[in-house]
Amino acid sequence: MADWKAAAAEKRQSLVNLIPTEWVIPAPPPPDAQRDVTGDYVRQYLTEDEVSITESEVPTILRHIHQGQWKARDVAAAFCHRAALAHQLTNCLHEIFFDAALHDAHALDDHFAATGKLKGPLHGLPISLKDQFHVKGVETTMGYVGWIGTFQGEKGTGKEKVFESELVQELRDLGAIFYCKTSVPHTLMSGETINNIIGYVPNPKNRLLSAGGSSGGEGALLGLRGSCLGVGTDIGGSVRFPSAFNGLYGLRPSSGRLPYEGMANSMDGQNTVLSVLGPMAHSVDAVKLFTESVLSKQPWLHDPLVVEIPWRESVFQSTLNNSKPMVFGVLANDGQVSVQPPVERALRRVADVVKSLGHTLIEWDPPSHERATELAYGAYILDGGRDIFESFALSNEPMSNQVAQMYGREPKPESTASQVAALNVKKRAYQKEYMEYWNSTSKLNDLQEPVTAVIAPISAFAAPTPEKFHYYGYATFVNVLDYSSVVIPVTHCDKDIDVFDDRYVPMNSIDEQTWKDYDADTYHGAPVGVQLVGRRLRRKRYLRWQQ
Amino acid sequence: MADWKAAAAEKRQSLVNLIPTEWVIPAPPPPDAQRDVTGDYVRQYLTEDEVSITESEVPTILRHIHQGQWKARDVAAAFCHRAALAHQLTNCLHEIFFDAALHDAHALDDHFAATGKLKGPLHGLPISLKDQFHVKGVETTMGYVGWIGTFQGEKGTGKEKVFESELVQELRDLGAIFYCKTSVPHTLMSGETINNIIGYVPNPKNRLLSAGGSSGGEGALLGLRGSCLGVGTDIGGSVRFPSAFNGLYGLRPSSGRLPYEGMANSMDGQNTVLSVLGPMAHSVDAVKLFTESVLSKQPWLHDPLVVEIPWRESVFQSTLNNSKPMVFGVLANDGQVSVQPPVERALRRVADVVKSLGHTLIEWDPPSHERATELAYGAYILDGGRDIFESFALSNEPMSNQVAQMYGREPKPESTASQVAALNVKKRAYQKEYMEYWNSTSKLNDLQEPVTAVIAPISAFAAPTPEKFHYYGYATFVNVLDYSSVVIPVTHCDKDIDVFDDRYVPMNSIDEQTWKDYDADTYHGAPVGVQLVGRRLRRKRYLRWQQ
Repeated sequence: MADWKAAAAEKRQSLVNLIPTEWVIPAPPPPDAQRDVTGDYVRQYLTEDEVSITESEVPTILRHIHQGQWKARDVAAAFCHRAALAHQLTNCLHEIFFDAALHDAHALDDHFAATGKLKGPLHGLPISLKDQFHVKGVETTMGYVGWIGTFQGEKGTGKEKVFESELVQELRDLGAIFYCKTSVPHTLMSGETINNIIGYVPNPKNRLLSAGGSSGGEGALLGLRGSCLGVGTDIGGSVRFPSAFNGLYGLRPSSGRLPYEGMANSMDGQNTVLSVLGPMAHSVDAVKLFTESVLSKQPWLHDPLVVEIPWRESVFQSTLNNSKPMVFGVLANDGQVSVQPPVERALRRVADVVKSLGHTLIEWDPPSHERATELAYGAYILDGGRDIFESFALSNEPMSNQVAQMYGREPKPESTASQVAALNVKKRAYQKEYMEYWNSTSKLNDLQEPVTAVIAPISAFAAPTPEKFHYYGYATFVNVLDYSSVVIPVTHCDKDIDVFDDRYVPMNSIDEQTWKDYDADTYHGAPVGVQLVGRRLRRKRYLRWQQ
Repeated sequence: MADWKAAAAEKRQSLVNLIPTEWVIPAPPPPDAQRDVTGDYVRQYLTEDEVSITESEVPTILRHIHQGQWKARDVAAAFCHRAALAHQLTNCLHEIFFDAALHDAHALDDHFAATGKLKGPLHGLPISLKDQFHVKGVETTMGYVGWIGTFQGEKGTGKEKVFESELVQELRDLGAIFYCKTSVPHTLMSGETINNIIGYVPNPKNRLLSAGGSSGGEGALLGLRGSCLGVGTDIGGSVRFPSAFNGLYGLRPSSGRLPYEGMANSMDGQNTVLSVLGPMAHSVDAVKLFTESVLSKQPWLHDPLVVEIPWRESVFQSTLNNSKPMVFGVLANDGQVSVQPPVERALRRVADVVKSLGHTLIEWDPPSHERATELAYGAYILDGGRDIFESFALSNEPMSNQVAQMYGREPKPESTASQVAALNVKKRAYQKEYMEYWNSTSKLNDLQEPVTAVIAPISAFAAPTPEKFHYYGYATFVNVLDYSSVVIPVTHCDKDIDVFDDRYVPMNSIDEQTWKDYDADTYHGAPVGVQLVGRRLRRKRYLRWQQ
């Protein structure tokens, strides 16, 4: 027992040691003393220039660097500083490599000064990465104590601290700067972020709540503007939860769109429901720029699972300039768990805006999402938990309650190949049924067009309080269908508007639990987002409609 | 025992009964008396008009129908007649539905006469289908006696004889006519076509040899021009073997390109190495027309596994009109099994033509294909044979020696979900290594371009003699990599040129067997094809270079 605690403490302290003394917050306030550490709170530790840089949007940052007004080194330094503050307030980092960032930024500045040429479209842009990406010079623990000092739990592979994931190589080629990797729940299989190395990641806008997971470190870091663009992954909502919970835009593309090659992962090779990576940021522009830039690297030449579909600017522009009315589905309630008042209001607001723009809304009444959730969970536990229990066993560290909620405390029997195949067939049948429902919506509206996108909650709440993430069904159907989804920030919880509905009659026990978990005072101030769900590989078509 | 024999005999006889008396060949000669039943031999049973129709290329047939010179009913009747002859000579059919074809053709003619409008680009075109496609009005046995009178081995599903596979619906919408389904080896997992219902499918050009498999009925039918366009499937060479063995063009696209939704299959849900469907025909034009037409139906709206990549005529035309030299890899020998003399000559001929056109050739020296074969076999036996043994058990029919070669006579233990995942990871690593080798070829030639396509054998022989299909490695690497491949007919075996090399020193026992299996007299006259292998989803780029 002592061993894993010591190893975790050492790793935790090693991060603190990498924060320059002048950036240390002497006595960070506890969450109940200072719920919201964003905005003015965090700004008190920053210079005016640092605030100006870190609160600029990605296109502005790039323009300033590319036109010579800002140095890449100053931009990198500002984000390093703010990330260091963010970590002290939310435990959002697993790896800190500010030195490497500043070194790389200097090199870019020198190159630009000497040649007048940019390395690429992302020249000088700091990008934060979830701790599944391998970056040279640092390790990847994915929140496991047993992975410290190893390559994905193995020692002596020769890849330790030298191997880089495909996307990292591509972003580097595009000119990006890396400076930190962000925290995750061990196993990645939770909508909250907790592990035995860095502890719990609270929501910076309201630290009584979760920052979400599994890309929760990204969510918190971005929420505090310690990053302007981050990359997360999503197998059951893990990009979208922290995006929504922290007031961000977040994209979960279909699988085969962006390169996952060379990433650390849980249950690697489980290919019934695939994890995908996606950008998280403060604007659609940043999300678009990321996607367009990565596709310009032709990732299909370096990742066997990526399909060759280049960025189609013309499709993007035609959608943007499209004045034709479209049809949107609205999923207000999935019939399993009702959403809490702030989410209900956010959905209504988006629906109202869409309607006011002249689009048609229809009620989204698809094949049961309960079946989708069953399929997703079926995929997550095909190996009975073997992969994750092996990783825990490396150090004998305990599993968090959040993860135990899905996997239990002991491995279960593995599925057989026949059972894996049967699940794949069931999933395909569900996908087929769902797509035909989608097709059929052209008969349900006057425009006689099928729905372009579905406006849906991403969770029943703005964000859960710790250990209260009981229902994933609003997220997982997207993963089972392999649809694309983009989260957009909509509003904030307001205790005066979003009052507890004490007359609500729950549909079942999880619904009851979720209903009772809402407390207007506790939730006050938390961001609320919703998702727009599009068909497979189709996100570009509507990425920007909402602006 | 008697039961399965009786059921098989009854099914076999029911096919014969569907052949009009005037089309019956009184006493078909045995193979050794009449090896080659194509050309003049089969023509003796046909009218001049029937010969003219059935020996026309697809664009000609369509032009004649669409301009009113030919009736769809006459075209259908001619192909029905020739298919009936083909079946009597090669056992190439599992289902005969000439009545439905003539009925549908009449309806198309009437529609055209009344409105002057075509149903679609394939209006009136007879298309033959491998017996994995469900077509209303007939059953699908896939060569299993136990599937007779069922839907995929199950009774009372409500789908029997009414359900249609997605592609069938799309082709119907495009105007195609269906008239027969073609025979397969039970399980589909053999490069020869044999089952307990129709027996063995010999090669119509040389009936001492196999027509190939698993789309062997298609191969034989097309080889006899009882079809102008057929659809097969390929999980380990099953479109490409019968295409090459019967002098045809055949396309194995990457998975996710053409709609497999709603097909019967073996080990459905095994998604490590996916079966795909592809066209087989007498010309590249037919292959192109099929692909272009199917994509015009937007199959990604009806098949969850199809990716949205429309037909890009501009890419096709730019490749066609490209006068820039390209680089081609040549795989003369995979280091496991050397090809027999006719295949060696065919490869050399293609390489010479390509070189004479000004293109550059490099030797193809990729990651070991032995590893690819191991990965493919690993995928085929993940369930230890459970799926196929269950289908055999339905009737207690015996398994053919060809299939037993892969699966043995008893089921083996199933793999666990972890083992499935581990295989997926190994496969992905192989794909990655192979694609980086492909990328690296730009450094191996003066044009500094990576290879456009690889000229490779599809098998070590022109076609095997019965039970002599011992090596699949020239085909399976394509399936593991999920690359696209097109087979092109090149030449015919010639006993005077393709002499047995008695000085050859075999590399191993399978190589020795393959070497000794070549007999110039036996092989004389058999067609020889080779394949052109392109990267994933890239076949259109070079589909036509060879013309």
